[in-house]
Amino acid sequence: LSIEVHILGSSSATPVFDRHPTSQLIKILHHQYLIDCGEGTQMQLSRYNHKPNKISRIFISHLHGDHFFGLIGLVSTMSLQGRKNPLTIYAPLGLKDILSLQFKYSETILNFPLYIEVVDEASLTTILDKDDHQVECFPLSHRIPCYGYRFTRKQAAPSLIKDRLPENISVQDIIQLKQGHNLVNDEGEVTVYCKDVTQPTQEAVSYAYCSDTIYTPSLSELLKGTTLLYHESTFTKEYESRAQSTFHSTAEQAALVAKNMGVKKLLLGHFSARYKDLSPIQDEARQIFPYSFLAIEGQKFCI
Amino acid sequence: LSIEVHILGSSSATPVFDRHPTSQLIKILHHQYLIDCGEGTQMQLSRYNHKPNKISRIFISHLHGDHFFGLIGLVSTMSLQGRKNPLTIYAPLGLKDILSLQFKYSETILNFPLYIEVVDEASLTTILDKDDHQVECFPLSHRIPCYGYRFTRKQAAPSLIKDRLPENISVQDIIQLKQGHNLVNDEGEVTVYCKDVTQPTQEAVSYAYCSDTIYTPSLSELLKGTTLLYHESTFTKEYESRAQSTFHSTAEQAALVAKNMGVKKLLLGHFSARYKDLSPIQDEARQIFPYSFLAIEGQKFCI
Repeated sequence: LSIEVHILGSSSATPVFDRHPTSQLIKILHHQYLIDCGEGTQMQLSRYNHKPNKISRIFISHLHGDHFFGLIGLVSTMSLQGRKNPLTIYAPLGLKDILSLQFKYSETILNFPLYIEVVDEASLTTILDKDDHQVECFPLSHRIPCYGYRFTRKQAAPSLIKDRLPENISVQDIIQLKQGHNLVNDEGEVTVYCKDVTQPTQEAVSYAYCSDTIYTPSLSELLKGTTLLYHESTFTKEYESRAQSTFHSTAEQAALVAKNMGVKKLLLGHFSARYKDLSPIQDEARQIFPYSFLAIEGQKFCI
Repeated sequence: LSIEVHILGSSSATPVFDRHPTSQLIKILHHQYLIDCGEGTQMQLSRYNHKPNKISRIFISHLHGDHFFGLIGLVSTMSLQGRKNPLTIYAPLGLKDILSLQFKYSETILNFPLYIEVVDEASLTTILDKDDHQVECFPLSHRIPCYGYRFTRKQAAPSLIKDRLPENISVQDIIQLKQGHNLVNDEGEVTVYCKDVTQPTQEAVSYAYCSDTIYTPSLSELLKGTTLLYHESTFTKEYESRAQSTFHSTAEQAALVAKNMGVKKLLLGHFSARYKDLSPIQDEARQIFPYSFLAIEGQKFCI
């Protein structure tokens, strides 16, 4: 598996019906990242047997409470549990002030290095770039500054089929082949086709997280090629004007974005407290995009 | 019933084994007050069918996270639920800054008046005085400024037995009797004994909350006459030196304070994450003071 998305909470601002505010644990290769951290996230991690200290990076979409009120508690617990490894938090301006003030009055000194990176990207930007995966950030349109994130497992380098390689092949030529290039001689003629001596590897796959946001059709073009999309669907279309005035989306709008983006699957979340039964949200989305699923806490979605 | 203590959480800093950090809902006559508000308190209120908007006052002991990280979420939810009634929070210096900063970045404007009263009492002081009940505050000894609170339902005014009153009794004399005084004539002789014309009423009862604190024997004298005591017991006596170095108490120490205070019942709480089974804590306290009980979330204690 390349990317796992573990839903820890998908309620909107008011937690009800045992639904917790937003948080997701992303496992990408051997890395564990958290997206958003509503109140109670540390208890939800514990409930589903995830270890807080395996999380190396946290990505906060925006500073409405249902997306980050659990962060200070989680960070404090990491320290109490003896964490030594650094933690990096990506968040809009303000989070550092908020955490620092709480540490000041509680006279807390963390046991580990905490780095806070301010995100204020005006367009799709790579904020983390590793050999095997990357994270991009992009602006969403909400009542306060708000950002989405896309996590991509890159296509791995092709693996060489050794007994098909020319004898005495140079290190430089091996690097060329591993980067997916053919070998050419001085006259520009191909001497070895990459596809003849390598095995294909799994294509790049990606997961994009869009919450909270007003209906923004241009997201489909911006995030074209995404495999799995989470898009907020706070309301059903019956409340479309309320969605618009509060800078949220309906299930139908989320499905339109997903359909036009060409994703494989859509996850719906950030459910308003008015819905005890969530099936109308899923039904509405599936009218537009059949591969729509409710992001229910405790569930896992894999790519 | 005069005072009800509803336990919402009694874990110490790290929430484990489905135990939540500290919070208690106090019902005193028709008032509902909250003491401390660890992360997840709003969910715990909901789980046990309490209505956040019936709470008129919140008392915070100190600014360690396990005692107040749930406050910002609870206050935000109160506003989202349309609260109009004022809320008063009593807390050590710093809380106002912490809440204000979060409201600033989330661009939150509350629907109701929020008053924050700074507690910095150097000795036992009445901070709220009503006809039928009062709340006192007193300093505890912890690593950062920390305060205990005592809630007292006052003894009600004696009720008059009308057919035993002298004819044509004056309003002033009735007030004297209701205040518990005998009536005297100009020569200083008693003409009517209060006890002869009034029915006795229930005595004053009180609940004192002491968390977090290092073992402080002088509390017993300070709070003499208290009916029900909650005293932290983070550790068993096996960890007495750790209790001392972290400014916490053992179960034995809590029981000694209760015994010497002469209370009717002791509630133990703020349990360290090292105890999955809490019975050793109760057993240890009962060796000293038999009326010792674990403050388990979901339980209610009545006076």
